[in-house]
Amino acid sequence: MTQPTGKLTEEKVFKDPVHRYIHVRDKLIWDLIGTSEFQRLRRIRQLGTTYLTFHGAEHSRFNHSLGVYEIVRRIVDDVFRGRAEWNEEERMLVLCAALLHDLGHGPFSHSFEKVFHLDHEDFTRAIILGDTEVNKVLSKVGKDFPKNVAEVIAKTYPNKQVVSLISSQIDADRMDYLQRDAYYTGVSYGHFDMERILRVMRPREDQVVIKQSGMHAVEDYIMSRYQMYWQVYFHPVTRSAEVILTKILHRAKQLHQEYYTFKQEPTHFYSIFEDELSLKDYLKLDESVILFYFQAWQEESDPVLSDLCNRFMNRNLFKYVEFHPTNEQMMKLMELTSLFKKAGIDPDYYLVVDSSSDLPYDFYRPGEEEERLPIHLLKTNGDLRELSRESEIVDAISGKRRTDHKLYFPLDLLENMSSKKAVKKKILELLHIHK
Amino acid sequence: MTQPTGKLTEEKVFKDPVHRYIHVRDKLIWDLIGTSEFQRLRRIRQLGTTYLTFHGAEHSRFNHSLGVYEIVRRIVDDVFRGRAEWNEEERMLVLCAALLHDLGHGPFSHSFEKVFHLDHEDFTRAIILGDTEVNKVLSKVGKDFPKNVAEVIAKTYPNKQVVSLISSQIDADRMDYLQRDAYYTGVSYGHFDMERILRVMRPREDQVVIKQSGMHAVEDYIMSRYQMYWQVYFHPVTRSAEVILTKILHRAKQLHQEYYTFKQEPTHFYSIFEDELSLKDYLKLDESVILFYFQAWQEESDPVLSDLCNRFMNRNLFKYVEFHPTNEQMMKLMELTSLFKKAGIDPDYYLVVDSSSDLPYDFYRPGEEEERLPIHLLKTNGDLRELSRESEIVDAISGKRRTDHKLYFPLDLLENMSSKKAVKKKILELLHIHK
Amino acid sequence: MTQPTGKLTEEKVFKDPVHRYIHVRDKLIWDLIGTSEFQRLRRIRQLGTTYLTFHGAEHSRFNHSLGVYEIVRRIVDDVFRGRAEWNEEERMLVLCAALLHDLGHGPFSHSFEKVFHLDHEDFTRAIILGDTEVNKVLSKVGKDFPKNVAEVIAKTYPNKQVVSLISSQIDADRMDYLQRDAYYTGVSYGHFDMERILRVMRPREDQVVIKQSGMHAVEDYIMSRYQMYWQVYFHPVTRSAEVILTKILHRAKQLHQEYYTFKQEPTHFYSIFEDELSLKDYLKLDESVILFYFQAWQEESDPVLSDLCNRFMNRNLFKYVEFHPTNEQMMKLMELTSLFKKAGIDPDYYLVVDSSSDLPYDFYRPGEEEERLPIHLLKTNGDLRELSRESEIVDAISGKRRTDHKLYFPLDLLENMSSKKAVKKKILELLHIHK
Amino acid sequence: MTQPTGKLTEEKVFKDPVHRYIHVRDKLIWDLIGTSEFQRLRRIRQLGTTYLTFHGAEHSRFNHSLGVYEIVRRIVDDVFRGRAEWNEEERMLVLCAALLHDLGHGPFSHSFEKVFHLDHEDFTRAIILGDTEVNKVLSKVGKDFPKNVAEVIAKTYPNKQVVSLISSQIDADRMDYLQRDAYYTGVSYGHFDMERILRVMRPREDQVVIKQSGMHAVEDYIMSRYQMYWQVYFHPVTRSAEVILTKILHRAKQLHQEYYTFKQEPTHFYSIFEDELSLKDYLKLDESVILFYFQAWQEESDPVLSDLCNRFMNRNLFKYVEFHPTNEQMMKLMELTSLFKKAGIDPDYYLVVDSSSDLPYDFYRPGEEEERLPIHLLKTNGDLRELSRESEIVDAISGKRRTDHKLYFPLDLLENMSSKKAVKKKILELLHIHK
Repeated sequence: MTQPTGKLTEEKVFKDPVHRYIHVRDKLIWDLIGTSEFQRLRRIRQLGTTYLTFHGAEHSRFNHSLGVYEIVRRIVDDVFRGRAEWNEEERMLVLCAALLHDLGHGPFSHSFEKVFHLDHEDFTRAIILGDTEVNKVLSKVGKDFPKNVAEVIAKTYPNKQVVSLISSQIDADRMDYLQRDAYYTGVSYGHFDMERILRVMRPREDQVVIKQSGMHAVEDYIMSRYQMYWQVYFHPVTRSAEVILTKILHRAKQLHQEYYTFKQEPTHFYSIFEDELSLKDYLKLDESVILFYFQAWQEESDPVLSDLCNRFMNRNLFKYVEFHPTNEQMMKLMELTSLFKKAGIDPDYYLVVDSSSDLPYDFYRPGEEEERLPIHLLKTNGDLRELSRESEIVDAISGKRRTDHKLYFPLDLLENMSSKKAVKKKILELLHIHK
Repeated sequence: MTQPTGKLTEEKVFKDPVHRYIHVRDKLIWDLIGTSEFQRLRRIRQLGTTYLTFHGAEHSRFNHSLGVYEIVRRIVDDVFRGRAEWNEEERMLVLCAALLHDLGHGPFSHSFEKVFHLDHEDFTRAIILGDTEVNKVLSKVGKDFPKNVAEVIAKTYPNKQVVSLISSQIDADRMDYLQRDAYYTGVSYGHFDMERILRVMRPREDQVVIKQSGMHAVEDYIMSRYQMYWQVYFHPVTRSAEVILTKILHRAKQLHQEYYTFKQEPTHFYSIFEDELSLKDYLKLDESVILFYFQAWQEESDPVLSDLCNRFMNRNLFKYVEFHPTNEQMMKLMELTSLFKKAGIDPDYYLVVDSSSDLPYDFYRPGEEEERLPIHLLKTNGDLRELSRESEIVDAISGKRRTDHKLYFPLDLLENMSSKKAVKKKILELLHIHK
Repeated sequence: MTQPTGKLTEEKVFKDPVHRYIHVRDKLIWDLIGTSEFQRLRRIRQLGTTYLTFHGAEHSRFNHSLGVYEIVRRIVDDVFRGRAEWNEEERMLVLCAALLHDLGHGPFSHSFEKVFHLDHEDFTRAIILGDTEVNKVLSKVGKDFPKNVAEVIAKTYPNKQVVSLISSQIDADRMDYLQRDAYYTGVSYGHFDMERILRVMRPREDQVVIKQSGMHAVEDYIMSRYQMYWQVYFHPVTRSAEVILTKILHRAKQLHQEYYTFKQEPTHFYSIFEDELSLKDYLKLDESVILFYFQAWQEESDPVLSDLCNRFMNRNLFKYVEFHPTNEQMMKLMELTSLFKKAGIDPDYYLVVDSSSDLPYDFYRPGEEEERLPIHLLKTNGDLRELSRESEIVDAISGKRRTDHKLYFPLDLLENMSSKKAVKKKILELLHIHK
Repeated sequence: MTQPTGKLTEEKVFKDPVHRYIHVRDKLIWDLIGTSEFQRLRRIRQLGTTYLTFHGAEHSRFNHSLGVYEIVRRIVDDVFRGRAEWNEEERMLVLCAALLHDLGHGPFSHSFEKVFHLDHEDFTRAIILGDTEVNKVLSKVGKDFPKNVAEVIAKTYPNKQVVSLISSQIDADRMDYLQRDAYYTGVSYGHFDMERILRVMRPREDQVVIKQSGMHAVEDYIMSRYQMYWQVYFHPVTRSAEVILTKILHRAKQLHQEYYTFKQEPTHFYSIFEDELSLKDYLKLDESVILFYFQAWQEESDPVLSDLCNRFMNRNLFKYVEFHPTNEQMMKLMELTSLFKKAGIDPDYYLVVDSSSDLPYDFYRPGEEEERLPIHLLKTNGDLRELSRESEIVDAISGKRRTDHKLYFPLDLLENMSSKKAVKKKILELLHIHK
C-alpha cells in the first residue's frame, strides 16, 4: 500500500496559465486537493468584487492556492534542497501550509469579516484541526502534523524560516497573487522576475534572505505590489461594490432581527445573524450561495434590500467623490446626512465614507508594527541589511502610509428625485455635481 | 440630450487580457452592457464544466461577449470603413449582434439544452424581442432594429456579409473564444495572428473573404481550432463532469415527477421540469443558482441524487475507458449493464457512453451540410477559391469527421464494493481494470 | 585544482530571451564557450540574409548554439536522469555536441557552400579535431573525447539515442531554432509547447521516443515548422538577397581568375578562390569580413560587381515572378536570356531561377531517404508507431514535396533603360509587367 | 506620377517583434528607408558592446529607428489627429525626424565619440543637409524641409510640441528603446503600458502632456527606465568591453602617429586619426569595418594592440573592483600604477577607472540643467503639474545622481606573471584578490 506521505506512481500536473504547470509528486498533496474543503475554494473568487471593475478577475482561490504551493515547491525542491541551513524534514510541512493557507476564506471575505466580525484565519485553523476531510488526510502523517501546519499558517511555528516562506514581505503568497491577479485582470503591472528572485533566496537561521545581487528584482517586485494595490486592489469602483455588498448584509441582518418576512428566507444566514456560526454552516457559505440570495432578494418588498441587491447584481454601483476628513468636510457630511433624510433616502445605507486603509492589504512598512517579516539582503561579505536601507526606491515608498477616503452615494437615485427640488439641488451642490 | 445611437462624451474602455482594451464609443453599446440580461452573463461560465479540468477556465460569457464585440468593432472601424462594398449603415447593427450573440445561453448550456430540449438561440431571440431591458435599449434606434439584430444572430438577415462577421468559419465569435479559452486555460494552442487576419479581410457582395496573402495565417487559425477542440473542448475529464451534471438533472426531474420530498425543494426548476419555462424564469437560472441546489442536494436522502451532487461539487468524477460501438463491444456493454444491476448500481446513472460528436462544436467540413459559411480566399487576380482547395493542411483535416466514444463509470464505487466479489471481479475485467 | 569535467564553484547563467536562462554548471562547457572558435559564432548570423526581409532577424549562431545546449541540458538533467535506458556517462558528450554542432558554419553559409563547394560539417569536424582551442578543451576529458563529440555531430556515433537528441525530426536543434527565429523575426508562428514535449520524451534503445499523450504537442511543433519554412525561411525576398550574394561571390572569383585589379584586393578570399582553403583561413571568414569587402567593392570599376554589392548593401534587391519549369516557360526563359544580352544586361548575373527546394532545409518526409531519424510515438501498451501513421495532420503534410520556383531580375535596371525601347517592352511583357 | 509626399498605392508593413507591425503609408517614408544612409544603420548595433554581456542584444539601430517612427505615427495618426492644438501640417515633419533621429550614429558610438571627440548629432545634421540620398528625398517636399527636420532633431525647431515627441523625458525614442532593448536582452524589466501612455498624451501649446489618469503608467515607465539603466545599460561587463574598445582605438591612433608599420593598415581610420574626417569617410565606418580591423590586428606585432584586440574579439575582458575616488583610494591607485609599470604592464592601457556617469544616458532630474523637457501631468481641472511633484516614486528616484566607479584590470595577465612574485602579490593584495 502507498504511504500517505509517499510519492505518486506518476507525477500529476495541472496546466496553469501563470506558472505553466503545477507539479504534484506527493500523494499527500494530491489527497488534500481532493478534499471537499479544498474544492470549495473553487467557489470563492480570489479578488471578491473586483470582477465588477476588471471583468477578467473571475479567478478563484483554488487557482491561487495551487500557485502558492507550486512556488514553495520550487523553492524547497530546486533552490533549498541540499543547503546546509535547510532542514529537508520541513518540506512536507511547508508544502501543506502553502496549499492550505487560504482554506478558511469565505465568500467576499473582506466584507463578511467586517460585517460579522469573523476572521478567516480562525476558520483556516478550525478546518485543519476539526472534523474535516483535510484533517483526516493530514493526520495520516502523524498526530501532531495538523497542528504544525496550522501553526505555520498562524506564524506561531518555532522555525521562522518555514513561516517566512508563506508569510513575509516577499513570500510565495504575494508572489503568486501579484502575478496571478495581473494575469487575469490583464493589467500590465504585476510582472517581476520571479525566477530570479527564487534563485537568490537563501535559508538562514530564522528567516529566508535574498542575495544582494537580486536587489533590483526585489525592487521591481515591490513596485509591482505598489502599482497593483493602487491600480487594482484599491480601485474605487471595486470599493463601491464592496460598500453595497456590506450594506446588503447589514440590511438583511437588521430585517431578520426585526422579524421581517422574507420571500426567500435567509436560511443559510440564520446562524451567522445570531452569532452561532458553526464550522459546518460556514463551509456551506460560498459565493454561489450568496449570489443565489442576492438574486432572489431583488424581489423582496423591503425597498432598501431590493434596491441594493439589484445594484449589486446588475452593476449599478454608487458614484463617489473625494473626501478628506477635515472639520469642514465632516460638517458637510453631517449636512448631507440630514438632507438625505429629508429626501427620504436612508443615509445609513446610501451615504458611505470608505477608506482604502480599511482594506485588508498591508504594504511594506518596516519599523511599524507588522506581522509580516521584513526583507533582508545578504551581502557578499555575509552581512544582512534590511532592504529599505539599501534601496532608494523601497525607502521612498515604504515610509509613508497613504490613505484615500471617498464618499459613496447613488447618483441615479438623486438625479431621479422628482419632488423636493430644493433638497436635491442642495445635495448635488454639496457633492459638487452641477447639472 | 444625447441620442440613443450617439457617441459617448468620453470613450469608455475595459481592460481585457486578450485584446488589451475593449473600446466603447457608442452610447447604445454602453447601455446594452448595463442591462440586467447582459450582466447576467457574468454568472455563466464560457466553458461550462471545463474549470474542473483546467482550473483557469473560470471566465464568463460576459468576458467573451465583450471580446467578440471588440473584434467586430476593429473590423468595421479599422478595416472596412471607407471600402466600396461595405455599407456603413450596417455598423451599429453588427456591433449589437456581436455583443448580444450569446445572450440566451443558460447555465452549463450544453447539458441543459440536451436534458430539457432547449435551444439557447431561441432564448437569445426572445430576450432581444421580448419585454426586457435589452429590447428597450435597442428599440430606441428604431422599431425594426431589435428584429434586425435578432436576424443577424439567427443568420436569416438578408445581407450575408453582416451575418458572416458573426457566423462563418472564421468569424469574430471563434476568433475570440479560441484566444480567450487558450488564455484562461493556459494551454499553448489557440494562438494565431489575428491582427494579420483582420488586415486581410475584405467585404464582398455576400460574404467576407480573405486575401490570398493571408492564407498561412488562416491555416494557423484552423490548426489552433483543431487543437483546442481535441485538447480542451473534448477533454475526457470535462466530459465526465458533463455526464454527471446531465445525470443530476435527469435524476432531479425524475424525483420531482415521482413526488419525492426534497429537503431543498427545486423551486427554480419547477417550470422547466414541467415544460412550462417562461423567459422570466429562464433568466433567473444562472450557475450560482445551479450550484446552490447541487450543494444542498448533497444532503438529500435519495442516494443517487446525493452521490452525484457530491461528485460534481467535489470533483470526484467518473473514470472512463475507450469504447467503440462494434457489435462485440455493444454486447459487453449489455453484459456490464446487467452486472451493474446485480451489483445494485443503477446503470442508467452510472454507466454512460459519451461521444464527442454529441458536443455542440462544429468543425470545418465544406461539402457537408453546415450552417456556417465556408472561407473563401481572394486571389490576386480577383478570383475566389474555397480555402481547402488551396491549402493542403486544411484539406487534410477538413474532410474527416472524427468521433470519439468513451464509457464512463464510478471506479471508486466499484472498488469499494465489499460484497458480491464475483460480480465486482467480472465488471472490472470487462472494463479491463486489473487489480 | 578543478577537474576539467568538474563543476563550477558557482553556476553561471546567461539571460536568454527564448529560454529565460541558460544554465552552465560544468567547467568544460564554460571553457568551450570561451574559445575563440565558439566566440566567432557571434559574427555569423543564424538566418543569413533573412534580416533584409525581417529586420529583427539579426541574431547570431552563438545565440542559437547556447539554446540548443540548454534544451539538451534540460532533457538529460531533468527528464532522462535516473531512467533505466539512459546512460549518465553520455551526458557530457551530448552537452558538448549540442553546444558545438554548428561550429563549422561560415558567413552566409548556404551561399558560400553552394558557390565554393564547401560543407560546414567538414569544418565542424576539423575544428573539433584540429589544432584549435576547442580541441584543447575537449582533450582534457580524454584522448577520444573530441572524436566522440565529432561523431555524435556527424551522426556516426554508435549510440543513436545520443545522436537523436541533436539530429532527429524533433531534436534540440530544431526546437531551438523554430522558437528563436520566431522570437527575433516577431512572427506569430514558431510557438509550440516545448516544455510538454520535453516531459514526454523517453530514451529507448536506439532512439528518443515521444509518449503518445504528447502527440498533439508534436503536431503543433510540426505545423510550426511548416509555417516557419514557408513564411520565413523560404521567403522570396530573402531568396532574392541570397541570389545577389551568390552572384557577387561568383563575380569576384571570376574577376580574380581574370587578373582584374581590385581597388580592395580580396585578400581573405585568395585561398578559397583557389581551392586551397585552410582551417586557419576559414576561421578568419566571418560576416563582418564579408560586409567589409562588399562595402568596399561598391566602388570597383567592374560595373557588375559594383552594382551587385550596392544592391546587397542597400537592399535594392531583385524582383521576381513565379516560374514553372515547363517547356513553354523554359522557352520563354531562353528568349529572355537572349533579350537580356541584347539589352546589355548580363543574364548570367541578372536573370536567375531559384528554387526553394535548393535551400538547405529538410522537411518531414518519412520513407524518403533522409538523414534525420523519424519520430516514434510510444503507445501506452509499449508499442512504437511512426508519427505520420497516428496523426492525420502530419500525414497530410509529410507526403508531399513542395517546390517553388521563382525568376529573379533587376526591375529597376530594366525600367531605367532609355534606349532599346522595343527590347525593353518585350522583356517586360515576357515578365508580365505592364506599365 | 506619385507625389513625393503622397500615399503609397498599398500600405507597406514590416513585421516587428516589439510593435508587431510597422506601418508605412507615405511614399516619403518608404523612400527614406531605402536610402543607403538609412540602410547603413543595419550595420550599427543599438547597444554597442552590450551583446558581450547579454547575447541577445545584437539588434541594430535600423530596428530601433523604425520603432520610433511607428510610435510617433501612432501618436499623430491615432491620438492627436483632429485635436485642436495639433497642427496636422507638422505630421510629415515629425515622422521624418522620428525615423532619422539616430542617422548620424557611428559604430560603437559612445567610445568613438569619446576617443575622437565626435558628436553623432553633428553627423545626423550633416547627413540630412549634405549631399546625400536622404537629402535628395527630403528636398522633394520643399526647399526648407531638410533644415526643418534637422532642427526638430536638434531641438531648435520653434514648435516645441513637435520636438518633445522625439526628445522629452517620455518621448518615442525612449519608449521604443526601453521596450526593444528589454525584448532583445530578454530581461524582465522594460515593460510598461505604452498603449495606455499613448492614449493619455495630449498636445499643448508648447509641449506634449500626460493626463493625470495616466500617472501610474508613467511611474511604471520611469521605473522601467531606472531598472534598465542599472541592470543593462551600465552593466559592469559591458563597461569592461567599452574600456577595452576605447583603449584599442587609442593604441591604434598612437601607433599611427608613431609611424608603426601595421600588417593591416588602418586605411579607413586615416582621416579620423588626423582629424580630417569627411562625411563620406564617416559613412563608410560601420561595425563590420571595425570588427574587420580588430580581427586582423590580433596578429599585429605590437603586443598591446594585439592583446587588446584579442580580448575584445574573444570576450576575454578585464575584471573589476569597486573604486571610490577618496584620497585613500587615489593613493592606492597611484601605487598600483607604479606597480603595474614595474610588472611591465602598461597602466595607460591596463588599469582603468570607469564611471557610469560618463555614459551617455541621462536620467530624470528636474531642476538640474537638462536638455530633455520634463513631464507635465494635466489635471482634471486643466492645471499642469510637474510629475515628480505628484508622484512619490518619481520624486524618490529623481532627486539623486548615482555614480558608480569601477577599476578595470586584466586579472589573467596578473595571475599568469611568473616572475616578479612580490610585485604580483602586492598588486593582487591592493586589488583585494586573495589566492
